[in-house]
Amino acid sequence: MTSIEQAMQSMGVRARAAFNAVRTTPAAARTAALYAMADAVERGADAILAANAQDLARAGREGMTEAMLDRLALTPARVADMAASLREIAGQPDPVGVEDERWTPPSGLDIARVRVPIGVLAVIYESRPNVTADAAALCVRSGNALILRTGSAALVSAVAIHAALAEGLSEAGLPGDLVQLVSTPDRAAVGAILTGLDGTIDLIVPRGGRSLVQRVQSEARAPVLGHLEGLCHTYLHVAADPEKARRIVLNAKMRRVTVCGATETLLVDASVADTLLPAVAADLLAAGCLLRGDARTCAIVPAATPAVEADWTTEYLAPTLAVRVVDGMAEALDHIARYGSGHTDAIVTEDPAAAAEFLDRVDSAIVMHNASTQFADGGQFGFGGEIGIATGRLHARGPVGAAQLTTYKYLVRAQGAVRP
Amino acid sequence: MTSIEQAMQSMGVRARAAFNAVRTTPAAARTAALYAMADAVERGADAILAANAQDLARAGREGMTEAMLDRLALTPARVADMAASLREIAGQPDPVGVEDERWTPPSGLDIARVRVPIGVLAVIYESRPNVTADAAALCVRSGNALILRTGSAALVSAVAIHAALAEGLSEAGLPGDLVQLVSTPDRAAVGAILTGLDGTIDLIVPRGGRSLVQRVQSEARAPVLGHLEGLCHTYLHVAADPEKARRIVLNAKMRRVTVCGATETLLVDASVADTLLPAVAADLLAAGCLLRGDARTCAIVPAATPAVEADWTTEYLAPTLAVRVVDGMAEALDHIARYGSGHTDAIVTEDPAAAAEFLDRVDSAIVMHNASTQFADGGQFGFGGEIGIATGRLHARGPVGAAQLTTYKYLVRAQGAVRP
Repeated sequence: MTSIEQAMQSMGVRARAAFNAVRTTPAAARTAALYAMADAVERGADAILAANAQDLARAGREGMTEAMLDRLALTPARVADMAASLREIAGQPDPVGVEDERWTPPSGLDIARVRVPIGVLAVIYESRPNVTADAAALCVRSGNALILRTGSAALVSAVAIHAALAEGLSEAGLPGDLVQLVSTPDRAAVGAILTGLDGTIDLIVPRGGRSLVQRVQSEARAPVLGHLEGLCHTYLHVAADPEKARRIVLNAKMRRVTVCGATETLLVDASVADTLLPAVAADLLAAGCLLRGDARTCAIVPAATPAVEADWTTEYLAPTLAVRVVDGMAEALDHIARYGSGHTDAIVTEDPAAAAEFLDRVDSAIVMHNASTQFADGGQFGFGGEIGIATGRLHARGPVGAAQLTTYKYLVRAQGAVRP
Repeated sequence: MTSIEQAMQSMGVRARAAFNAVRTTPAAARTAALYAMADAVERGADAILAANAQDLARAGREGMTEAMLDRLALTPARVADMAASLREIAGQPDPVGVEDERWTPPSGLDIARVRVPIGVLAVIYESRPNVTADAAALCVRSGNALILRTGSAALVSAVAIHAALAEGLSEAGLPGDLVQLVSTPDRAAVGAILTGLDGTIDLIVPRGGRSLVQRVQSEARAPVLGHLEGLCHTYLHVAADPEKARRIVLNAKMRRVTVCGATETLLVDASVADTLLPAVAADLLAAGCLLRGDARTCAIVPAATPAVEADWTTEYLAPTLAVRVVDGMAEALDHIARYGSGHTDAIVTEDPAAAAEFLDRVDSAIVMHNASTQFADGGQFGFGGEIGIATGRLHARGPVGAAQLTTYKYLVRAQGAVRP
C-alpha cells in the first residue's frame, strides 16, 4: 500500500468514527455547528480570499480559460454567500429521526420507518470553491461524515475554507473529522476513494464534468449518486400562451447557459410553429443565441443553421439551442424519450389535459408545466442548497439536499411477539 | 457478440419496450393482470407440478441435499400459496402515482413528488420456484418490467410457472414481455445481465447464497439491491422479562434456522445472566440447538462449547447459537456495531428508556423491541411479499416490497415562471 493509500484509509477510518460519534447527538448540536461554521467563514474571509488569490494567480499562469477562472474566483460577496448558505441550511428542518410512516400490519407489530443518515460520503469535485462549504453544510445537517476531494486548481482555496469549517465544528463540540479535506493534489487519492476505502465510504458524489462523472461511475466500488448530463427540453404545445412561451424559452436557454438545467433543445408544435417560432427565435437571436434547426425550423427561421443528428444529443452548455418542429404531443414525447437525459423537461401550454399528459408521460427526474427548466436547483426547490442533481433512478432523483442524504431504518415495537 | 449475448440484449430491449408500454396504463390494468396470473397459476397447477417433478428427479440423481430438495419441491399447497400471494399483492394499494409530498418553496413553484416505477429489473435467484411468481407479482404491482434468471436446478419448474404468468398477463391485455424468463441454463446469461444489457437494466436483485450475491455485487455494472447476510442479534437487557426472553429467543433462533432473520448471536446482560441464561439455554438445548458461548456463558451453561472469534461473525443458518455475556448496554451496542450485518437486531427489556436507546443507537435496517428477529419479512411487515431484504444503505433497507420498487419524480406546475 502506498503512503497516499494509507493516508486515505486512515481518513476513512476517522470519518467512520466521527459519523458514529455524531450519529446519536441531538439535531441542536448540528444546528449550532452550522451557525458556528458560518461565523468562522465570515471571520476567515480575508484568509480565504488570500488563498483564492494564490489559486487564481497560478491558474492564470497556467492559461485557465476565462469561464473557468470565473468559477474559481471568490469575492467578498461570494464568501458572504457561503456563510449565508450555511445559515440557511442551519435553519432548515433537521431530517434525521423524522418518522416517515408508522403502521400496524396484520402481524400486530408496531412498525415505524424513521430517517437516519447514510454514513460516510465522499464528494469529488472540480474547481468551484463554494462546493466545499455547501457539501459540508448539507452533510452536517443530515448527520453524515464527509470526505472532500477538490481539483488541484482550487486546493489552496479549499484548504482555507475547510480550516474555517473545522473551526466551527470544533467550537460546537463536534469532531473535526466529520468534515475532512484531502490535502494532496495527487490523483491517486481519487483512485483510493473509488475503492471505497475498505468499506468505509457509503456513497460517492462526483460533481464536475462528464469525464469525471463517467470515471467515477465506471470505477467506483461504492454506490455513486451522480449527474451525468442535463439534456433538457422545452416543448411549446399547440395551446401554448405566446407571451409565456417567449419568456420561458428565453429564460430556460439564456439565463445561464452553463448550468445543467439550461434547455438544450426546443420542440415546437407544427400547428403553431409559423406563429410562435419567429418571435421566440428573435428573442434568442437578440440575446446572442445560435440556433440549429431541423428543416421546418430553418424554413421559418432563416437565421438558423441546419441541425444534424448530433445536435439532439449535445449538451451545449453554451448559447446554442437545437430547435425541432414536431407533429403534436406524441412526437414530442418520443423525442424526449429518445434523446433526453432524464434530468428536466418542460411543456408550455394552457391546456390542462395536455399538461397532465406531459407530466405523466415524461419519465424524467423533474417534469415542468409553464416553468423555466432553469428552476432545476435545490435552492429553488426549497432545499437550502444541493450536493448535486441526480440523474440516476435509484435512491434520489433531481436536486439532492439534506433530506435526500438520509436513508431509513425500521423500528419495530412489540410486547413479546413471536412469529407463528 | 455470442448468440447468448444477442438473445439477452434483445430481451433487454423488449423489457424496456414493455416497461414503456405499461408505464402509463392505469393501476386497474395491473391489478386485473395480477388476478389473472393467480387464476392461471391455479389452472396450470398440474403442469407446474409435473415440471417440478422433472427438476426433482434430476436433482435427486445429481445428489442434491435434502434441505435443497425441500427448497426446490412444490406441492399442491405450495402452488396454491403462490396463487394466494399473487392475489394478496393484487389487493395491495398501488404504489405508482402516489403523491409523497407537495409544497410551495419561496420560489413560488408548486412542486409535487410522486412515485414512479424504477424501470427494468433483473432478478437472479437460485432454486426456490416460488420466487418466480413472487418477483413477478411485485414487479407487476409496481409497474416494473422483469427479467428472471433462475438456477438450472429449478429451470423446468420456472418455465412452467412463467408460462402461467404470461397467460395471465396476456388475458389482461398487458405485454408478455413485461415478465421474461431466461430459458437457457448457460451461465453466460448471468454475465450478460451483469453488464446491464446496454443500459436497459435499471436494477439487479440477487437472491441466493453469499457467493452469488458477492459475484453480482462485485461484477454488476448496473445498481444492485442485495442482501449479503443476516447476522442478527438478540440482546437480553438487565430489565428483560424472563418469560418474554425465553419465548423470544427460542422463536428468534429455532422457528426456522435457515432464514436470514434468524438470530445468530445472543447477548445477555451480565447482571441477569445467572438467573436468565439457564432457562433460556435449556429451552434451546431441548429444541436441539447447539450453544457456543464465551467463557462466562460456559461457566453458567455447562452444555455450551467455547466460542472462538469466528463464531461472532458466522451466519450459521443452522441450529447453532453463539452466546456472549456482556457488561451492560454499551458493550451490547459495541458488539452489534462490530459484528452485525445491519440486518435485524432486537432488545428484550421492560425498561422503556433502554428500549429507546437501543432503537436509536443500533444502525441496522430493522431494530426491534420485545419481538422475535424472525419477523424480518415483507409479509410480516404488511407488504404482501418481498423481492428480498436489502442490507445496503441506499434506496431501500430491509424488506423490499412493491412500494420499495418505485422511485420518484418531481412535477413542477407554474403559470409562466422564469428564474430570476
